Amino acid sequence: MATTKLLSDEAASPAARAVFDDIRKTRKTDFVNNAWRAQANDPVALARTWEKAKAVMGPGALDPLTKELIYLAVSIMNKCEYCIHSHTYFARAKGMTEAQHNEFLQVIGLAAEGNALMTAMQVPVDEQFKVE
Amino acid sequence: MATTKLLSDEAASPAARAVFDDIRKTRKTDFVNNAWRAQANDPVALARTWEKAKAVMGPGALDPLTKELIYLAVSIMNKCEYCIHSHTYFARAKGMTEAQHNEFLQVIGLAAEGNALMTAMQVPVDEQFKVE
Amino acid sequence: MATTKLLSDEAASPAARAVFDDIRKTRKTDFVNNAWRAQANDPVALARTWEKAKAVMGPGALDPLTKELIYLAVSIMNKCEYCIHSHTYFARAKGMTEAQHNEFLQVIGLAAEGNALMTAMQVPVDEQFKVE
Amino acid sequence: MATTKLLSDEAASPAARAVFDDIRKTRKTDFVNNAWRAQANDPVALARTWEKAKAVMGPGALDPLTKELIYLAVSIMNKCEYCIHSHTYFARAKGMTEAQHNEFLQVIGLAAEGNALMTAMQVPVDEQFKVE
Amino acid sequence: MATTKLLSDEAASPAARAVFDDIRKTRKTDFVNNAWRAQANDPVALARTWEKAKAVMGPGALDPLTKELIYLAVSIMNKCEYCIHSHTYFARAKGMTEAQHNEFLQVIGLAAEGNALMTAMQVPVDEQFKVE
Amino acid sequence: MATTKLLSDEAASPAARAVFDDIRKTRKTDFVNNAWRAQANDPVALARTWEKAKAVMGPGALDPLTKELIYLAVSIMNKCEYCIHSHTYFARAKGMTEAQHNEFLQVIGLAAEGNALMTAMQVPVDEQFKVE
Repeated sequence: MATTKLLSDEAASPAARAVFDDIRKTRKTDFVNNAWRAQANDPVALARTWEKAKAVMGPGALDPLTKELIYLAVSIMNKCEYCIHSHTYFARAKGMTEAQHNEFLQVIGLAAEGNALMTAMQVPVDEQFKVE
Repeated sequence: MATTKLLSDEAASPAARAVFDDIRKTRKTDFVNNAWRAQANDPVALARTWEKAKAVMGPGALDPLTKELIYLAVSIMNKCEYCIHSHTYFARAKGMTEAQHNEFLQVIGLAAEGNALMTAMQVPVDEQFKVE
Repeated sequence: MATTKLLSDEAASPAARAVFDDIRKTRKTDFVNNAWRAQANDPVALARTWEKAKAVMGPGALDPLTKELIYLAVSIMNKCEYCIHSHTYFARAKGMTEAQHNEFLQVIGLAAEGNALMTAMQVPVDEQFKVE
Repeated sequence: MATTKLLSDEAASPAARAVFDDIRKTRKTDFVNNAWRAQANDPVALARTWEKAKAVMGPGALDPLTKELIYLAVSIMNKCEYCIHSHTYFARAKGMTEAQHNEFLQVIGLAAEGNALMTAMQVPVDEQFKVE
Repeated sequence: MATTKLLSDEAASPAARAVFDDIRKTRKTDFVNNAWRAQANDPVALARTWEKAKAVMGPGALDPLTKELIYLAVSIMNKCEYCIHSHTYFARAKGMTEAQHNEFLQVIGLAAEGNALMTAMQVPVDEQFKVE
Repeated sequence: MATTKLLSDEAASPAARAVFDDIRKTRKTDFVNNAWRAQANDPVALARTWEKAKAVMGPGALDPLTKELIYLAVSIMNKCEYCIHSHTYFARAKGMTEAQHNEFLQVIGLAAEGNALMTAMQVPVDEQFKVE
């Protein structure tokens, strides 16, 4: 039902297979999810996206769970079914509790409502909020 | 330039004025931003939204800065100019550093790209991600 | 600041000018708003859109104000600044009261929140709701 | 396939069960749809949303069917599959005829097209439309 | 699972059936896809949309494949599952190669990321880009 | 009015300045637009995005103007004001004629309308369109 092929290890090119192997090594699992199998049709792009994902989603000034919640929030607003399922899964894998999920959902709902109201009323930005 | 009136303290009804006062007391500032002045045309809705915002955005299983970042992520994907400015300001007020802002932006960009690709290729959700 | 020219009556082609004249006659006003002046760069498309707008937005099984509110709801969710301003104006011109505007805004906010929650939780559609 | 549990009456907490009971009483049906069963994981949020929905969607300055059509318009633009199915169902339950549905769809299509064109051409808002 | 009936040739009105026949003749195939069968509930709208689609998507200053890719890009960003599948199919039918599809996907991803970053940072438009 | 600083050549770090220089050299102009000045706060991300943009937007299986039109279509649907202005400008710089722009706009409008209708009616994907 995808619009592209989902490449098995056998069907993937050596360059794509090398990315699959790094995904397995980095995540310490044999499982390579469909997101990467779909992107494997373009091995150069696959490698670029995977390297970027590793660089961006790892520990830094923000912790990995916070980054997952931000990624999940974006995915919800983009109505990406695949991404909502996978990043809810990843957030739980990184320690998200049910209490945190519930609070996360309430922030999502509050923000979606607030955004719609501000847009509907075309509220001008207060001078105090302008920094640059 | 708004599509509704932005009510000053004088123009607001006593019920709306009471919400303004609670905003000032809760935030320990005299400043009441335009979001609330626009909603003050409907004092019942204003009070309901303010009470909800206080309940949802305060400390809990997630810390207030994480909640701000989630709110900001939603606002960006909803292209709400008012909300992007105000919640970037609030995130900084709650301690967001420039390094955190930079990492936040990278997660936003990565997620937006990933969402678009998964949607474009209509990648099916892996069985492993389905929990319910 | 538009990305196309906004054509004055003088700059418009005879075909575009004929549409301007029909807009004036239909609306009983001399005012031709920028939406049509921007579309006038493509007179064939201009005429097609104007004929469709007349056919769709007039009285029918739904009254004109209800149609304006539906149009406005779509415009808000599409974050179209021009359309939000113009169709809030048109809704008022067709009789929308401030009480109706307030209720309209509350429905918009409730729906935006509900949509975000259902999407975030990927709630499956109940069998009862499936009609076809 | 949801990312949260859909709670049966037995699995729901007493507080969530009380909301289920009020939904049944208010709607005069034994059917409690999945939207509420998913939200029941957070009984406080469930009660808050249900109370708000009752207050907002009931009769007022706008009639209930008009409110359903506005809710449905928002849901379509937010691409919320659950909400599109449920609120089309609710609109029919509140009396929407096929002729009204057809006109509704034409307004949705016209608005979506108009929004895209105005955004693409970045048409500036006419001074006449600015009210505040 | 649609919210409207998908009309077979037998169920369609003569006016709708005439559009089906023109679709078959224009596309040189007996296949009439669900998009038109769903719109057939409103024969006037069906005919209007089909005439417009023929006028807009045919050869002109832009070639038909380029038009398909633009249509597909819009459909992806609107998260329209039906449209993504059908217009990926149509693009391939009009000659899109896998290499072109891969490049198309990379542009989609780059643009989605760039859009999100520009919106998140509220970058002001350079004077050089303003033409009107 | 941005939520981040727009860095001048003097304020940019040596790494960011090197990217500015490559932008100038690649585009054969002294002009470095705000998109890059805003991203310069994070020189690692700036370099990564610029390298990717060069790789993706250059000639390949699709020509550069077609890529610009796809980028512009995405930007319009994402309501990114900055991106709409800059990529309309870039499309013209790469040879887009007014006739092509008009046809482009008509495809955008047709697709936005079609997407909204298919989503509103939740039309199921025909078996013929499913390729994988």
